Amino acid sequence: MALKPSSPASTTEFPAVICTVDVVLLTLKDQALHVVLVDRDRPPFAGVPALPGGFVHVQEDATAWHAAARALQEKAGIVSPYLEQLATWSGAKRDSRGWSVSIVYYAVVAFELLPADRPGLRTAPIDSLPSLPFDHGEMVATAVARVRTKSQYSSLPIYLCGERVTLPQLQAVYEAVLGEPINKVSFRRKIEELGMLEPIAGETTMAGAHRPAQVYQLRPQYRRKLSVVPRGINALG
Amino acid sequence: MALKPSSPASTTEFPAVICTVDVVLLTLKDQALHVVLVDRDRPPFAGVPALPGGFVHVQEDATAWHAAARALQEKAGIVSPYLEQLATWSGAKRDSRGWSVSIVYYAVVAFELLPADRPGLRTAPIDSLPSLPFDHGEMVATAVARVRTKSQYSSLPIYLCGERVTLPQLQAVYEAVLGEPINKVSFRRKIEELGMLEPIAGETTMAGAHRPAQVYQLRPQYRRKLSVVPRGINALG
Repeated sequence: MALKPSSPASTTEFPAVICTVDVVLLTLKDQALHVVLVDRDRPPFAGVPALPGGFVHVQEDATAWHAAARALQEKAGIVSPYLEQLATWSGAKRDSRGWSVSIVYYAVVAFELLPADRPGLRTAPIDSLPSLPFDHGEMVATAVARVRTKSQYSSLPIYLCGERVTLPQLQAVYEAVLGEPINKVSFRRKIEELGMLEPIAGETTMAGAHRPAQVYQLRPQYRRKLSVVPRGINALG
Repeated sequence: MALKPSSPASTTEFPAVICTVDVVLLTLKDQALHVVLVDRDRPPFAGVPALPGGFVHVQEDATAWHAAARALQEKAGIVSPYLEQLATWSGAKRDSRGWSVSIVYYAVVAFELLPADRPGLRTAPIDSLPSLPFDHGEMVATAVARVRTKSQYSSLPIYLCGERVTLPQLQAVYEAVLGEPINKVSFRRKIEELGMLEPIAGETTMAGAHRPAQVYQLRPQYRRKLSVVPRGINALG
């Protein structure tokens, strides 16, 4: 049973806190993780590449998640199939404008789904990031660590692939994210356990001197969610 | 190199957002997880048991973490050796006073470390919680799930024990948190891998008809931090 307030809302003045959202959107380009950045359109740090984000619009955004989805669309032209909460950064000193909170979300997306030639939109390799404003550098590092941990146990890296993928390509994506080689036999069993991919009948690709590789696609019911394997992708057995 | 703002701070009016913190403090009582609640001292929901928390004090709190530690001490009289960020709840509808954010922290603590007989302080079993105000029920459920997941891979449950513990007692604590039996041999190997406990020379306890059990304590360097085992406590091998 939901409780009802026992008396009218208090009339206390609430302390003024700046509430923003930021989004760490990771993608794979040239087999390396990249983060999506947009040039800031206002001070502080006007013109400097930063994570897409902005103020919560209290009249418009039902929750911080909605604010993040809106900011990502407005600032970067991107509709992500999902956004997960990463963590919240807060404090008196992180923003020159006052005591501030940034609720940070993250997602991974296939590079080919990013808008091409959008002014101010860029990707930067996570291993050689430009200097980012506020604590955005720390947010990116936290998101990368989370994605790596989560990739050991889930289908997360599948969302870095295009719509069609072969198993050797998918293994290369997992290896790029995890930063280590994966046993092929164990990998294929885990992917089969996940049950997210279906072969596209009759479609194969030829890569170099190898045998033709079957092309797969995400089953429709998985296009907007993640699956999890009970033990790690890279665990033996 | 840290960036400096390129121009003075904007003079935009920031939208008014209510910024609070809440703490989910879990403890073990009668071999069952309990959450610490305090009676609210002001409306809304005055007098109703709720998670300890409160407004961020922008003049006083360096970050939300500091606000949570302060609120826990003021409202519940508890200094926790650590507080980890759980997640942030936000939105237009969760608090009758306006668009609000609650940054939630969690910790586990030994029952014997809680203040005895503090007015308004109580513990409730997580399996039969009273109806909690706001979205506090969801916060507790999220914290319990996080503690269970984390306990499979870390020393977290050790912080539910008193200062001295035997291995059979510690195993019972892990089993209470995880909600399932654990293989004794595998458990002892994992605890040894963690390397956090040291035997107290010459100290044993007699429990029932069993052989005397060695009494252990946390090594001093671990009294304020967690350790992690690379594979789960309950994994084979």
